[in-house]
Amino acid sequence: MLHLHSESTKRWLVQVDNHLDELLLDHAHCERKAASTAMNLMNAYTENLDICREMATIVEEELEHFFMVIDILKKRDIPFRRIAPGPYGRKLTALIRQNDPNRAVDRLLVASLIEARSCERFRLLADHVADREPELSAFYAGLFESEARHHTTYVKLAEHFASREMVRERLTELSKLESEIIAEGSELPRMHS
Amino acid sequence: MLHLHSESTKRWLVQVDNHLDELLLDHAHCERKAASTAMNLMNAYTENLDICREMATIVEEELEHFFMVIDILKKRDIPFRRIAPGPYGRKLTALIRQNDPNRAVDRLLVASLIEARSCERFRLLADHVADREPELSAFYAGLFESEARHHTTYVKLAEHFASREMVRERLTELSKLESEIIAEGSELPRMHS
Ligand SMILES: [Fe+2]
Ligand SMILES: [Fe+2]
Ligand SMILES: [Fe+2]
Ligand SMILES: [Fe+2]
Repeated sequence: MLHLHSESTKRWLVQVDNHLDELLLDHAHCERKAASTAMNLMNAYTENLDICREMATIVEEELEHFFMVIDILKKRDIPFRRIAPGPYGRKLTALIRQNDPNRAVDRLLVASLIEARSCERFRLLADHVADREPELSAFYAGLFESEARHHTTYVKLAEHFASREMVRERLTELSKLESEIIAEGSELPRMHS
Repeated sequence: MLHLHSESTKRWLVQVDNHLDELLLDHAHCERKAASTAMNLMNAYTENLDICREMATIVEEELEHFFMVIDILKKRDIPFRRIAPGPYGRKLTALIRQNDPNRAVDRLLVASLIEARSCERFRLLADHVADREPELSAFYAGLFESEARHHTTYVKLAEHFASREMVRERLTELSKLESEIIAEGSELPRMHS
């Protein structure tokens, strides 16, 4: 359903255990960036009111998620601050082809894969901390559904710019590349490291 | 209250009378851009949670306004499309000083002046079309209040980056320059022409 080519490994869960505070901080920024990405796509393809409507919904949901994570940070006495982003977003963005309509397809599919990976990791995180942190676990289990929906929305919208078959084919390609980027990982403990 | 240095003249109302459809189209894009500006400011000054909260509220309200204008376009059978922007936003943005904290002050104050001018023009438009277009008039009268609030929010947030006196002084300067830009006008019939 999420079109991911690989599952996350234990390596990431070790990072989670060693740097949960930093991971939560990164998650807040991920939600803000997800809102921003949707806003940028609404600006880029504004003639298309379907895209405008779906993007506006995603902007609002991601902003809501952002403040939910901010509340969690507050409860845990983690001061909110800016942190260096991991390489995941930059590496994925570099895969976007330069000219429309390919560019539009790729921007939407890259967004769909980020949502899919977030979704997979929220689920993993929810299960991993279930015993010792039931509240945090419930929070991540609760986010799973909306991020899965965002994934589906982005894939569907890509069909405004290419046939369903071309979208599927490109999604498979990008998903394999996304798996390689995830396999490379990062020493920075992040939601997508 | 709006800190505008000059009032709009009849010249603009002539443009309104001759090109109402194009003006409404431009208004839709103004609302989208207002949402986008708030999102960009949230990204730029994200360490400041006051700014994040205020910007998120503005993003949501501007997106709501965008879809309200889209509904009006639909009722009037005006097909939604992209149109060339007028020079107003570009000329105002060129006044922003390059280095923070001055840059932050100016970005917020330029946003405050765009809100103020929108506000003034919504009021003018509401009065101007009151007799022949009561529904449209009521719509613009209804937007007045939230744009005035956005103006105040942006001015207040500028005080995170400079003293109240420095903000007032810079606002006076920028407001004079904004009046000059408005006096220059544009042949493109726009909300800020
Ligand atoms: Fe989210
Ligand atoms: Fe999402
Ligand atoms: Fe607005
Ligand atoms: Fe506004």
